[in-house]
Amino acid sequence: MFDDTIAAVATPPGSGAVAVIRLSGRESFEIITKVFRPKKASLEFNPYSIRFGTINDNKEIIDEVLISIFKAPHSYTGEDSVEISCHGSLFIQQKILNLLIKNGARFAGPGEYTQRAYLNGKMDLSQAEAVADLIASESASAHKVAMQQMRGGFSSDLQQLRSRLLKFITLIELELDFSEEDVEFADRKALKKLIGDIQKHISDLIHSFELGNVIKKGIPVAIVGEPNVGKSTLLNVLLNEDKAIVSDIAGTTRDAVEDIISIKGILFRLIDTAGIRKTEDKVESLGIERTMDKIKKSDIVLFMINAGDPDAEKKISEIQKKSKNKQLIVVINKIDKNKSENSLHKISGKNIQYIKISAKHKTNIDKLNELLIETVNYSALNSSDTIITNIRHLNALQNAYQSSLRVSEGLGNNISGEFLAQDIREILQYIGEITGEFTTDEVLGNVFANFCIGK
Amino acid sequence: MFDDTIAAVATPPGSGAVAVIRLSGRESFEIITKVFRPKKASLEFNPYSIRFGTINDNKEIIDEVLISIFKAPHSYTGEDSVEISCHGSLFIQQKILNLLIKNGARFAGPGEYTQRAYLNGKMDLSQAEAVADLIASESASAHKVAMQQMRGGFSSDLQQLRSRLLKFITLIELELDFSEEDVEFADRKALKKLIGDIQKHISDLIHSFELGNVIKKGIPVAIVGEPNVGKSTLLNVLLNEDKAIVSDIAGTTRDAVEDIISIKGILFRLIDTAGIRKTEDKVESLGIERTMDKIKKSDIVLFMINAGDPDAEKKISEIQKKSKNKQLIVVINKIDKNKSENSLHKISGKNIQYIKISAKHKTNIDKLNELLIETVNYSALNSSDTIITNIRHLNALQNAYQSSLRVSEGLGNNISGEFLAQDIREILQYIGEITGEFTTDEVLGNVFANFCIGK
Repeated sequence: MFDDTIAAVATPPGSGAVAVIRLSGRESFEIITKVFRPKKASLEFNPYSIRFGTINDNKEIIDEVLISIFKAPHSYTGEDSVEISCHGSLFIQQKILNLLIKNGARFAGPGEYTQRAYLNGKMDLSQAEAVADLIASESASAHKVAMQQMRGGFSSDLQQLRSRLLKFITLIELELDFSEEDVEFADRKALKKLIGDIQKHISDLIHSFELGNVIKKGIPVAIVGEPNVGKSTLLNVLLNEDKAIVSDIAGTTRDAVEDIISIKGILFRLIDTAGIRKTEDKVESLGIERTMDKIKKSDIVLFMINAGDPDAEKKISEIQKKSKNKQLIVVINKIDKNKSENSLHKISGKNIQYIKISAKHKTNIDKLNELLIETVNYSALNSSDTIITNIRHLNALQNAYQSSLRVSEGLGNNISGEFLAQDIREILQYIGEITGEFTTDEVLGNVFANFCIGK
Repeated sequence: MFDDTIAAVATPPGSGAVAVIRLSGRESFEIITKVFRPKKASLEFNPYSIRFGTINDNKEIIDEVLISIFKAPHSYTGEDSVEISCHGSLFIQQKILNLLIKNGARFAGPGEYTQRAYLNGKMDLSQAEAVADLIASESASAHKVAMQQMRGGFSSDLQQLRSRLLKFITLIELELDFSEEDVEFADRKALKKLIGDIQKHISDLIHSFELGNVIKKGIPVAIVGEPNVGKSTLLNVLLNEDKAIVSDIAGTTRDAVEDIISIKGILFRLIDTAGIRKTEDKVESLGIERTMDKIKKSDIVLFMINAGDPDAEKKISEIQKKSKNKQLIVVINKIDKNKSENSLHKISGKNIQYIKISAKHKTNIDKLNELLIETVNYSALNSSDTIITNIRHLNALQNAYQSSLRVSEGLGNNISGEFLAQDIREILQYIGEITGEFTTDEVLGNVFANFCIGK
């Protein structure tokens, strides 16, 4: 338990109908008793109960509020805590917060509530991190991944690996105690199989990071093509279609030159599009370098070409060569202008698809959206497999994987139990870093610095 | 009771640690049962209780939440209601809100919760209006006035007047029943005194509007003076001193050419200052017309003049003539440049005060702030007298006052009880409009249209 009691506004900044101020720590009930007067009867601290009354600074009534009572350990932080639901004027929020401070609380830092929840054993570190991801989630897929992690799906996977490894390490260490007798309690064959399983599992998790990152940040899509094929028109159409959704997302941190659209809950990041729009009026050739750069950063390439372009095949073939390992969507634009059956001989391949649109008349934009969605590895998004999204987890998993390779190698070379135990301990430690069983103040500081205040 | 159940996000727009979604109406418990799964045991609807669990859309878990249960009539609206406290991601807020709608609720309109509270008899109309004022309050004085009104101070004043008048009207109407016998149950002398009391009280309230308006919108201060006396420097200093407070106020609706500062909880509105700053670099004479216009709009005139200006007395005398009925503060600036004892013969008067400052070096700015505060009718702000701030109330009071004059006149002319009763009924009706005893849908529409959604 901590010595001090922390207070913060937990609701979004600004004014609104209602704001919630959180108080957590051992003096929560003492402090609220000083400032709160219940409307009826006396104040009792029944867990999970709500009381109506006023917040008072001596004789001055600051607001009529509801307070919610949480008793340790049955609260978010695991401590005694109180939530004050007041009128959402900024003036009132600040006044109540200052009053709590005056009566013995201190301002909570970013993520301090969740940090206490972690340190009081209410959740592990990866679950705590998922809380921040959940609050930041802006799309259905990001929300799903964060929710799964917060509810402990990821942690229980890791826990299983750990407990199986622990069993072996106990046996190996037992061998060390009897080292002069040259016994082998730990079945080396079974250990080899286990390490193999672990490597497979860790490697799956490591590979899921790419997808996880894409879910969080959006799937990078390059829109390329010669000047005047209608790139900016298409871009505007794509953005307008989803404007309502995108503009609802406040505080999105996005690269200044990237636009983000959400199609069916999946984010797409349109690369360097602002740049395209700015330089479009300059007379510019295909701009090979710029295009190559955009393609490199993308997973999906939207190559735009005019319907009836006589050099279409040559150009498509050229862009296909540059888009190896990418999904290529050839967007044949301006079909309203060129209605003649297109004589284009389509170059086929497993990573290439064609669609005819008119960006100007918004023809087939729905189909293009569907094509984008299909191009995504949708099955992976919908599976219940764990997806990691956190670079700290990635690093720990990569380290664990390296240690597991040393264990495999050691097993192949029949190294002594002592060294084997050491490498296995390393795996345990790296996995433990993810859930926070092994951690440092520096790591904790970094994790919680990214939280908002009040959580 | 209303037939439908309404839902809205009640916390400020945006993302944060926590958001609160309100559900109110007869199907609240039915709807929450469909989407909420308690973590432990089954869901019971105990009033003023909190439950932890998940919000689910069929198999998908949307969030882990706390729900608060309020049972009619012991809720804000007087109806069964539930508050859902979820993670403050905008995505989650919208998802939960849409889920509630899908399960039978409908989106609440602006102020609809408070409107229901009023229509269900939880508060009168002037108290409902005070809720909106409270949420919008940005200064200590605006907060105080709104709080007093919300807690029914204003309403109980009016209620007293009403009940005294009602007693008389009953007696007068009794006279009408016995009209052929020419009796007088209602003591005309006592009625005359009561009407006198009422006129005094209503007239006090009407006069308080000016102060109330000033509290809400800020006390208008004109900063005037010749070019290069340091008006814009002073303005920036005044603004900077309070920048933290002012910039914290989100959504302040203010005239584009006015800046608002808060000194010790009282708002001051600096008139046309943006205009000054824009035109300052133009060579311009005193600009008599512009200055006069600013002075007319203000309660306080800050007249700036350079220390050591040889024509000071003449200029001060001139501005004093133009500032009749205003508080004039002569601000002698640049005392750092002209340290010689100022030979200025001060023109004295009850509405004129002097202060020496250096805007550039921020000398005596504290004292200027104090002077501004003193100039305000501080005693009125601190009294417990009712202050009205609402133009609807002002209109109703002015009408009631007109009717009361007709009653006085009628009493003087010994008019028949019938006419007297009619005029007294009018007073009652106008006063009843304020508390909402007499009201129309149009009035209600106007009152609640200014609320935020979720309140």
